[in-house]
Amino acid sequence: MPIFAIVNNKAENTSGRHATLYLLPVPLSDVAPASVMPEHNINVARSVKHFIVENVRSARRFLKRCDRSIEISELSFTVLDEHTDPADVPDMLSPLAEGMDMAVISEAGCPAVADPGALAVEAALRRGFDVQPLIGPSSILLSLMASGFNGQKFAFEGYLPHDSGTRQRRLKEMTGRITREDQTQIFIETPYRNNRLIAELAKTLPGSMRLCVCSDLTGPDQKIACRSLAEWARASYNFDKIPAIFLLYK
Amino acid sequence: MPIFAIVNNKAENTSGRHATLYLLPVPLSDVAPASVMPEHNINVARSVKHFIVENVRSARRFLKRCDRSIEISELSFTVLDEHTDPADVPDMLSPLAEGMDMAVISEAGCPAVADPGALAVEAALRRGFDVQPLIGPSSILLSLMASGFNGQKFAFEGYLPHDSGTRQRRLKEMTGRITREDQTQIFIETPYRNNRLIAELAKTLPGSMRLCVCSDLTGPDQKIACRSLAEWARASYNFDKIPAIFLLYK
Repeated sequence: MPIFAIVNNKAENTSGRHATLYLLPVPLSDVAPASVMPEHNINVARSVKHFIVENVRSARRFLKRCDRSIEISELSFTVLDEHTDPADVPDMLSPLAEGMDMAVISEAGCPAVADPGALAVEAALRRGFDVQPLIGPSSILLSLMASGFNGQKFAFEGYLPHDSGTRQRRLKEMTGRITREDQTQIFIETPYRNNRLIAELAKTLPGSMRLCVCSDLTGPDQKIACRSLAEWARASYNFDKIPAIFLLYK
Repeated sequence: MPIFAIVNNKAENTSGRHATLYLLPVPLSDVAPASVMPEHNINVARSVKHFIVENVRSARRFLKRCDRSIEISELSFTVLDEHTDPADVPDMLSPLAEGMDMAVISEAGCPAVADPGALAVEAALRRGFDVQPLIGPSSILLSLMASGFNGQKFAFEGYLPHDSGTRQRRLKEMTGRITREDQTQIFIETPYRNNRLIAELAKTLPGSMRLCVCSDLTGPDQKIACRSLAEWARASYNFDKIPAIFLLYK
């Protein structure tokens, strides 16, 4: 199939074996991996020996929870985090070039979404290796499903800007996209600022707009709280230091 | 916990049992459900008797593939699709009010994302029922992971507008968001127009911009083709009538 030549057939593979870069999701909360992903992922965790990880300690813990019999000392871990120089990423893929599968593991959720793993994927695609995204928990997707907000059009914004002028402009832009484009807006905040963020939104945006706050998704304390900003302004709540994700919609 | 009163404690529950609305994903391709979702989902499919579905036939087929011993004739199915009057949705939830769990099933992928299920979720949250989003395959999320494009900021656009003036304006807006906001743009097209869409993008947008086309995600013919629009303009390809998802990034 010549049309996929750029993607699949140019692998710089010195061994003859066609190696795969797996994108292996991690639970969002303190639950057994098998309860939040297909059995197939656990088999991938068992078979891969070379990992690109956001954090070595949490990756090891995850693998041990996948299967206690995994021998961590036999595995290689390379760190790809927000401090990594993008120029160093292609070299991380050398096991692939030798025909050995690799997996990307982030701190929580799906690799390459809201974390630095995308650089490894880009480098792998450029060099013609197979990339295999695996199914697992994503707070973005689960919160969108649970919110009842528009899932036909939505945007994930990451963190809002901190500088107050830029932040106000950004919130205004996002409100415009909700109203004019019917686009749900999804974003996150450093957990110790969660309460302040909710108060700020309730104070500065139209009271009829709805805010959904989801916390501990998939975990024992999962909460899905959707109400208008006018209701949030009157409500008592405490999301201090609790990882949460925020969704705004009309 | 008073803060979740609006969400969790006002259920119009006549039976005393606190019922849950599950959002139950469906495979994207012709594979066994257990290969693309946690075992927990299969147990939910086995236990729930009342379903809100986009298409009755495909929902029945999905349930039978979850477990052949499920007795379809004992189940109730209510259709929630693009033709449903939103005013009819609250009544669909009457089993919840009687303390019986329900599940939303769409044609493919995750309910309430890029399909009409969100109306059922909104109605359930308003009436204080528990909503439980389950983990499963989403072409939006998998394609974003596999593309290597920016997963820290992205937008899902649904279908591009058909009217040529509106469409050109929308593409220009999306290109601006890629360049200025570093936001990956994700969209879909009616499959028989896929080839035309790729040609159009290659002709009208900057050649350095990258387009990733993902087809048959999770299936045996999965393809992830990422290249610059200049390369797409020279490439031969055929995605005619093949369900695909498109991602644009710089």
